[in-house]
Amino acid sequence: MSKTEDQPRKELQELGEFGLIDHLTRNFKTVQHSTLKGVGDDAAVITASEEEVLLLTTDLLIEGIHFDLMYVPLRHLGYKAVMVNLSDIYAMNGTPRQITVSIAISNRFSLEAVEELYAGIRLACSRYGVDLVGGDTSSSHAGLYLSVTATGTALKEEVVYRHGAQENDLIFVSGDLGSAYVGLLLLEREKKVFEANPDMQPDFENVDYLLERQLKPEARRDIIELLKELNITPTSMIDISDGLASELHHICKQSNKGCTIYEDKLPIDPLTFEHAVAFSIDPTTAAMNGGEDYELLFTISQKDYDKIKERLEVTPIGHITDAASGLQLISKKGVVYPIQAQGWNHLKNN
Amino acid sequence: MSKTEDQPRKELQELGEFGLIDHLTRNFKTVQHSTLKGVGDDAAVITASEEEVLLLTTDLLIEGIHFDLMYVPLRHLGYKAVMVNLSDIYAMNGTPRQITVSIAISNRFSLEAVEELYAGIRLACSRYGVDLVGGDTSSSHAGLYLSVTATGTALKEEVVYRHGAQENDLIFVSGDLGSAYVGLLLLEREKKVFEANPDMQPDFENVDYLLERQLKPEARRDIIELLKELNITPTSMIDISDGLASELHHICKQSNKGCTIYEDKLPIDPLTFEHAVAFSIDPTTAAMNGGEDYELLFTISQKDYDKIKERLEVTPIGHITDAASGLQLISKKGVVYPIQAQGWNHLKNN
Repeated sequence: MSKTEDQPRKELQELGEFGLIDHLTRNFKTVQHSTLKGVGDDAAVITASEEEVLLLTTDLLIEGIHFDLMYVPLRHLGYKAVMVNLSDIYAMNGTPRQITVSIAISNRFSLEAVEELYAGIRLACSRYGVDLVGGDTSSSHAGLYLSVTATGTALKEEVVYRHGAQENDLIFVSGDLGSAYVGLLLLEREKKVFEANPDMQPDFENVDYLLERQLKPEARRDIIELLKELNITPTSMIDISDGLASELHHICKQSNKGCTIYEDKLPIDPLTFEHAVAFSIDPTTAAMNGGEDYELLFTISQKDYDKIKERLEVTPIGHITDAASGLQLISKKGVVYPIQAQGWNHLKNN
Repeated sequence: MSKTEDQPRKELQELGEFGLIDHLTRNFKTVQHSTLKGVGDDAAVITASEEEVLLLTTDLLIEGIHFDLMYVPLRHLGYKAVMVNLSDIYAMNGTPRQITVSIAISNRFSLEAVEELYAGIRLACSRYGVDLVGGDTSSSHAGLYLSVTATGTALKEEVVYRHGAQENDLIFVSGDLGSAYVGLLLLEREKKVFEANPDMQPDFENVDYLLERQLKPEARRDIIELLKELNITPTSMIDISDGLASELHHICKQSNKGCTIYEDKLPIDPLTFEHAVAFSIDPTTAAMNGGEDYELLFTISQKDYDKIKERLEVTPIGHITDAASGLQLISKKGVVYPIQAQGWNHLKNN
């Protein structure tokens, strides 16, 4: 792309994160026969053997952008950095196997601080049975940078992509939505109180669940195991890291479909509801656009509904429609709203 | 590790990069059967199928630590970021297949700047036949952060580790050493001249080779192909990223051996020699500790010597000894010096 004097400099924020990735990678061609799926799903899919594929995913976590060390304990940060990657492997219906961890740290961190970070990484590895197999370590001029890559495996015919949703498929989510976001609001509020008056103790009574959802999410291995146990292969799946609305857009765009979901079906924890309202935030907005839930969003064929309908771990929230119908949210009052993908956009937020 | 009041805070610099990695990862156990080699070689080695293994390596490149955008063109940076990872795959005697690229960028970068970076990445991918299959994009508060991960494959019995060197094996290096370091010195000198007087034009006459070695290294795929063609499997191998001395220490430590190398055998380009002397730096020091050569250091059995002795791409520089003899450099005057691993230590340099 050539720059002429008539064209103003293009700002990164105009494109947004997904737009930028699309833009930068559109001219790349894949040449390796083993590359079954490159950019554009929760993980890349690479042929490993006749029957098996390798899954590969990577995430970058940056101090001041993705986390605030004023209220994120380093041990939790290490744990969460692994979880967000394992969540991507589960979202492909795979089993995580190995991770690499690269860190850049400034001189303000002591050895003990870095040990705390690695204690969290080790706990995550041991709970989920994954091996730390490599990484890189460097200093940074300011702040902490964490780059985690995870591998996973899956049988070739069991990989679930974002692009497989079919009309009339049912849309499910695991767990509940919006809690991690409300947990973040609580942490941010208490940070402001503390900054104004360092003698104040934080007011975190009875909100453990919300704080845990923000600080120590768990990747939903249990849901993948449940689906296997029920003999259900989802037609499409994605993990909810940027908010339900954003993930529905990915599923629908890549499947070339639309969807209808129902506000009254959205699984929102009563505590999340209560505290969202206290922050004057619509709980539905927290659920749709909050982000960092690390739940799974998946679609199944109607024929599989009876197998799963009694299971409390997952909630049906709507169904897939044709592309022309777009993405719709039916409110509790029966009003139809188009679903906007606000999501977390770290480039726009800056 | 518990901290008591008697123990002063431990600084990261005291451990150095390799010490820190060893320290942080020593409590990690591997549980996956597929993990053949975790932390501690150029790449992790993971079982992919009966015959084949997956190789996995990752590197972090940070503005102001690993590169200076005042003289590193973004296109070259993108190219080099891929090369340093492919070099690690070749160092395992493998074939690179896929990469992921994560970047964090501040608002000072325009879209055009990021496009330049990706143009370099794309050129590297197309020249070396590797696929870009994923990554992550984020904003940063300051500076550019690049995290690249590469996969490769190799036949299980053809993987070459750092730990296989045997007594009396011959030690070879590809290409020449110290040029990238002298190239860096030239770039730093001209930067200072420019900062003092922005009207001065940089004096880069007849030093293209040195600048290229620093700015646009090539991973030595040709050496891996040569070894295959000659039907030689090295007993150990490593890529020279931190300087020959540091890499010899890795090979000897992991093989539980010593080594003797000869100063007069070190391949140093005449241009490198000339400019090192002009900078009042011993060319041997540049070759031993300069770093960023991205050449291959490998050991072969004496029985393979006749097959390779005529090849100009590689140079025999010494041989492997028993561990008790330590690591020795025999100077041109016949004086024996112990080899210190200074290398690049980004943690200590800060």
